[in-house]
Amino acid sequence: MARRLSLSGREGSTSRPAAKPSAGLREAPADTITSRDNKWLKMFRTALRGTGPTAGESLGVEGPKLIEEAVRSGLEAEALLVSESGEAELSRILRAASESDSGVPRSRILRTTDKLFASVAGTEAPQGIAALFRAREWEFDDLLRGRAARDGGYRSEAALVAVMAGVQDPGNVGTVVRSAEAFGATGVVATRGTADPWSPKALRASAGSALRLPVVRGMAIPVLLAQLRVMGIRVIAAVSRAPDNAKLEPPDLRGKLALFIGSEGGGLPAEVLRAADAILAIPMRAEVESLNAGVAASVLLYEIANERRAKA
Amino acid sequence: MARRLSLSGREGSTSRPAAKPSAGLREAPADTITSRDNKWLKMFRTALRGTGPTAGESLGVEGPKLIEEAVRSGLEAEALLVSESGEAELSRILRAASESDSGVPRSRILRTTDKLFASVAGTEAPQGIAALFRAREWEFDDLLRGRAARDGGYRSEAALVAVMAGVQDPGNVGTVVRSAEAFGATGVVATRGTADPWSPKALRASAGSALRLPVVRGMAIPVLLAQLRVMGIRVIAAVSRAPDNAKLEPPDLRGKLALFIGSEGGGLPAEVLRAADAILAIPMRAEVESLNAGVAASVLLYEIANERRAKA
Repeated sequence: MARRLSLSGREGSTSRPAAKPSAGLREAPADTITSRDNKWLKMFRTALRGTGPTAGESLGVEGPKLIEEAVRSGLEAEALLVSESGEAELSRILRAASESDSGVPRSRILRTTDKLFASVAGTEAPQGIAALFRAREWEFDDLLRGRAARDGGYRSEAALVAVMAGVQDPGNVGTVVRSAEAFGATGVVATRGTADPWSPKALRASAGSALRLPVVRGMAIPVLLAQLRVMGIRVIAAVSRAPDNAKLEPPDLRGKLALFIGSEGGGLPAEVLRAADAILAIPMRAEVESLNAGVAASVLLYEIANERRAKA
Repeated sequence: MARRLSLSGREGSTSRPAAKPSAGLREAPADTITSRDNKWLKMFRTALRGTGPTAGESLGVEGPKLIEEAVRSGLEAEALLVSESGEAELSRILRAASESDSGVPRSRILRTTDKLFASVAGTEAPQGIAALFRAREWEFDDLLRGRAARDGGYRSEAALVAVMAGVQDPGNVGTVVRSAEAFGATGVVATRGTADPWSPKALRASAGSALRLPVVRGMAIPVLLAQLRVMGIRVIAAVSRAPDNAKLEPPDLRGKLALFIGSEGGGLPAEVLRAADAILAIPMRAEVESLNAGVAASVLLYEIANERRAKA
């Protein structure tokens, strides 16, 4: 913890005056990164332009709002990269860090030029601030009990796990995670072959929810189905159209359940449909073949939340 | 009509043998466009890379599936551009054209190279086929009665108009239009300052719904509000969080109504909130600031459809 001191007050600010990161430095200070080959820049480029961190890699987060969400959610920052134009946002982030349990190590606040920043950023109009965070390691059990509340207790609702099985578009994946948190899901699974909820695009589309909600990535479907069975969690399969032989009675949506959402083009794999305890379809006009995958998942999560509230 | 003859049979195919457009031409035929400066290529480039057609401009549609939807919806094709790799899709589209009222003028099936096609396409992985269609001109009244059914009759449901007031992202706009059609909306309005539902990105995100559902673009909000009032249509404003002084009773969602959806960042303008007969918010967890705009609109349209069905 010694190296993780909060810059904007509280900790350590009496014995040592706090730096003034937002003092509006016009000239690049001596420690500004000016080489494209700098190892930090390379790490940021990989994290901000990749498809999500592999085991041991850092989670790349771009933009002041999302970084603030990450800090507030208690993620540990490994480095912060700030360009001239991002300097103004730094103080806000350091303030958030000082208010949370996490800190930002002073030695890991790196400066660079706007031009070099743009060369590592993953967005078209970069805001001049990015961070690398140590990725959380969620266990399967975390998915079922939700995130620990501030007082250390867990939410008391029955488990509701949103499972994405083959969702390809990172924007859709992020949207599902955002809606999952909004509608009280306790966790999210992205099976093998699904876009990574921690990829930069999905993170942005999740508006930060992927930084808070327990997320398990890359699980194989048979393993997941077996685990759910062992834990007594019912499997609900979302489909575009109810098949003719579908049980017509709407399933009971209270109790522990996992909602499976399939890929944009192909829906759910047969193994999931076979294993499902119930099938859910959203009634809609015949002219429309299907809904957007993020929308379909969101409507079903909304419906589940509704039913749980009504019958609670 | 003389110049709009269907190529794959029915009209004119007895007196003149049908061309074989899908005969798998390997070499570029003599009429292949090979110049970047060709006026048709320029028109396609504008239509496929723009932000939506202005008055009098053609509607650009890319990809076999979406072109087929356009043809089936009865839109009149002005030109079809096919590259070597798109040739295989052509017959399917001409078949759809022969089955619909619209045709594809033979003289307006233009060929070009894959390379030149890529230079006008709006997608990263172009599928080698694109079309320009004459844009439909929808009147305000069309929004209220929905699209004419195949037998010429109109749908009998009460008007349900989805109004996007400042939605910026074309993907979100397309998603709203898709869900609007799925949940039985009779029409869609994109007010001035909203991304164009007929822009290439929104068209794709709508999965063709923007080609079928009555769409009015670029209306000024005060004009729209006045029209709705004159027609006796209630205004429902969607907000992220119910304000403290909101009428707590959920509004009656049957009857003629217009659902207003605001911008991703700023929500609805004050003039809409002032004019609204009721305010709708989706209950959600406090941690989540808001839902994706496309998702929020979809959930509310779903809820409206639900209520109408339940109480019909």
